[in-house]
Amino acid sequence: MSLLVVGTVAFDAVETPHGKVPRMLGGAATYAAVAASYFASVRLVAVVGEDFTTRDHSIFRGRSIDTRGLERVPGRSFFWSGKYSQDMNERTTLDTQLNVLAEFDPKLPAEYRDSRFVFLGNIQPSLQLRVLHQLRRKPRLVALDTMNYWIEGALSDLRAVLRHVHVLLINDSEARQLSGRHNLLQAAARIQAMGPRAVVIKRGEHGATLYRGQQLFVAPALPLHRVWDPTGAGDSFAGGFMGSLTASGKTDDSSLRRAMIHGSVMGSFAVEKFGLERLRRLTRKQIHARARKFHHITRFTL
Amino acid sequence: MSLLVVGTVAFDAVETPHGKVPRMLGGAATYAAVAASYFASVRLVAVVGEDFTTRDHSIFRGRSIDTRGLERVPGRSFFWSGKYSQDMNERTTLDTQLNVLAEFDPKLPAEYRDSRFVFLGNIQPSLQLRVLHQLRRKPRLVALDTMNYWIEGALSDLRAVLRHVHVLLINDSEARQLSGRHNLLQAAARIQAMGPRAVVIKRGEHGATLYRGQQLFVAPALPLHRVWDPTGAGDSFAGGFMGSLTASGKTDDSSLRRAMIHGSVMGSFAVEKFGLERLRRLTRKQIHARARKFHHITRFTL
Repeated sequence: MSLLVVGTVAFDAVETPHGKVPRMLGGAATYAAVAASYFASVRLVAVVGEDFTTRDHSIFRGRSIDTRGLERVPGRSFFWSGKYSQDMNERTTLDTQLNVLAEFDPKLPAEYRDSRFVFLGNIQPSLQLRVLHQLRRKPRLVALDTMNYWIEGALSDLRAVLRHVHVLLINDSEARQLSGRHNLLQAAARIQAMGPRAVVIKRGEHGATLYRGQQLFVAPALPLHRVWDPTGAGDSFAGGFMGSLTASGKTDDSSLRRAMIHGSVMGSFAVEKFGLERLRRLTRKQIHARARKFHHITRFTL
Repeated sequence: MSLLVVGTVAFDAVETPHGKVPRMLGGAATYAAVAASYFASVRLVAVVGEDFTTRDHSIFRGRSIDTRGLERVPGRSFFWSGKYSQDMNERTTLDTQLNVLAEFDPKLPAEYRDSRFVFLGNIQPSLQLRVLHQLRRKPRLVALDTMNYWIEGALSDLRAVLRHVHVLLINDSEARQLSGRHNLLQAAARIQAMGPRAVVIKRGEHGATLYRGQQLFVAPALPLHRVWDPTGAGDSFAGGFMGSLTASGKTDDSSLRRAMIHGSVMGSFAVEKFGLERLRRLTRKQIHARARKFHHITRFTL
């Protein structure tokens, strides 16, 4: 089974209390695809500009990532620049240059159109919907990520695509904004009424919670000695989560719980170095060991 | 086995987004003693004034709470008044009247002096130390709670008592303040170097983490539909935690993990009504059911 990943491949400039990187490969689809590729094969759909070199492309090589859907067009790639606060709980966007993303119209190669597991990374909701329309049959599981920008500026498009989505991945403040409810149980219930039968609310250093009907699963964040760069943690979570489900081929409660842990594992690795540096050099053994660590820090007997 | 609980019995005035109560029974020792009494018998040491009536005293009756150490002296009881922010993550103290607490000198009745499990609630660190000096022999487990006020104003006394403490219960901002470290793994390691072999860092709606050497245990907070009043949640956690350990008579890893869950259970009940209203009317069956709920929301298989 393959996972379809749609989103951005970008260049980022990032400043955290631990350092400053003026230009590095990033983008939601890059983090998600690399994270997912440790679990399942990935089909990537994104657009890059002429500044995306063979060397940049090497991030996808040697992994089970199909890049036939990675379009290269004239112009420059999407660029984002941001700075994190001292405690890294807040970030300020310093610059956003859409560049080739402004004209992005995701096209699924014919070979991708039978995809059963789909992750729609954070892009314009109308484009996310267009991806779904290109699938030959109804997918098993569609997960979607979005952000405050679209909740504020493209709410009706977002609500249209949400009707076709099974799992919404969203952070706590966005969940509150989208639902108009501060309490997260209430927020999740309201969002489930918009379409997604499950909502994953990401709370950064406090972990992530899966709300599915009346069912709950709380995944902790792994306490880490140092967080170097939170960029891409949420997308790495999404990649681990969806990669895990794609590999299992199942969407039952037990597989969803395991996917929450695999998402948390990949998120915890992502922040340990700048950009994709930690994520790109992992082994399956390291991933399994960290998943067992999550088990160790949560198990108890009554 | 009995748990010795030392701390405040007070009256509180509390305002939250869900209501306002001008005067209700409160105090760290009250919450901790009532919470612990569902697990083990409790020996209470505190001071109240003449305004503490027979009706107020009924909170302790019908439970296994020994109140021979509850001193009644001329004057008024300790009074605290506070208001919570809209999201209840912050609170402002509006008024503090020490009253009889100003002259409090905790005296252990002879029958209490063999106590092996001790909870030192949040009072002046020098008084916490004086309690320990009155014990006939070295206790099995001493847990201590404190606050920013003592970290700022009585640090050397606090560090003196910490040398005799096994478990420090503290919230995240206080852990950072006491250790001078923002990262909580580093903060916990620094605090362990001050004496306590274990540190429980309480993170309110985000749960609590136990740091013990290199061992970690992360307890989630139960997502609740509505939090009415966060007052006493931390003390109820401490009561459930220490009551559970006292009942088991053990301090091994498995018992500490179970105690973290029992603490979280009692904290989750405490906030469901104002003051002690929810906590005082629980059954063992409800407590067990909620503990199983914590198990349900955290269990997974890899």
